[in-house]
Amino acid sequence: MSRWQPGARERLERSALELFTEQGFAETTVPQITERAGLTTRTFFRHFADKREVLFAGEEHLPDLVARITAEAPAELGPIEVITHCLEQAAQTLFSADRLDYMRARRAVIASDEGLRERELRKLEAVTEAMCGAFRERGADELAATLAARTGVAIFRAALGRWVDGNGDPPLSKVVAQTLAAFRGLTADQAGKPAR
Amino acid sequence: MSRWQPGARERLERSALELFTEQGFAETTVPQITERAGLTTRTFFRHFADKREVLFAGEEHLPDLVARITAEAPAELGPIEVITHCLEQAAQTLFSADRLDYMRARRAVIASDEGLRERELRKLEAVTEAMCGAFRERGADELAATLAARTGVAIFRAALGRWVDGNGDPPLSKVVAQTLAAFRGLTADQAGKPAR
Repeated sequence: MSRWQPGARERLERSALELFTEQGFAETTVPQITERAGLTTRTFFRHFADKREVLFAGEEHLPDLVARITAEAPAELGPIEVITHCLEQAAQTLFSADRLDYMRARRAVIASDEGLRERELRKLEAVTEAMCGAFRERGADELAATLAARTGVAIFRAALGRWVDGNGDPPLSKVVAQTLAAFRGLTADQAGKPAR
Repeated sequence: MSRWQPGARERLERSALELFTEQGFAETTVPQITERAGLTTRTFFRHFADKREVLFAGEEHLPDLVARITAEAPAELGPIEVITHCLEQAAQTLFSADRLDYMRARRAVIASDEGLRERELRKLEAVTEAMCGAFRERGADELAATLAARTGVAIFRAALGRWVDGNGDPPLSKVVAQTLAAFRGLTADQAGKPAR
């Protein structure tokens, strides 16, 4: 008989990540994960399609979320300001410092396996496409929307990676500000130069 | 006895792409490809590891090539100017208009298959990493190098996609200039605003 398991999903996530880290992703089986979590494989498959999806749990909502934040940014904002708005929203709501250990371990596991790296890239591509669509709805043409979305995701990836590297110090909101400043520095050499 | 086959590689590429387009990537076998090309499977495997790699032939040199062009750009250029230099070099040397039909068909096949899309993303990631390393060697810090490389690849992808969409009109050098102008427009809203 199926019963509600308090925190079952979180226990499975944590057990899976521990095992992936200790013995490798390829070497870890679902029964090993459920044994460590003290749960059944039936419970596992109620929460996750397979062991890979434990690492991407909940992220299927990310494209829609990013599209919504982009769409809801004030109409008068230009593209880089919209990206700034999205990053600030994400820093405030999506990533909490008490998940840092989890995120660092997760990142190491993904880096260790080619299939996981590809899965991560595909997720980022889906986020980019959703953001691109939202920029088009704001009135950007195809080219501007594509560039804005790819730039936004590039800045986001750089900021998040830096935050995890720094172990949460400085906090994400500050790392986002630093990353945006670095992006401005990158494009500052355009100022005052004739278009080529 | 193995003999040199004039144009064997090109015939295999073309036959493979025709079959992928006509009947689907998953449904196409190596013997079908070699039969259409009038060659043996032994010849096929002398040129390609598997049918997937036919679509990515020669691209294993792309990361090193991009790194070299980035490294050799004049020292006084800022990041966006280096990216411009790389794109202009690529437009002149890598992509010729007589390959447009091939590139459009190849793009459609890749879009049709999840494994191929992931392979394409991995290739772009390898190019990004190579460009990032070259920017670090030019003296950029890790964050600036990461942002410059991701921005460069984003602009490159947008330009190349637009060129293929437009069937080579305008020529790639012009599409590159348009894409760089659109990127400048994207970041133009930063001008005169205080850093946040």
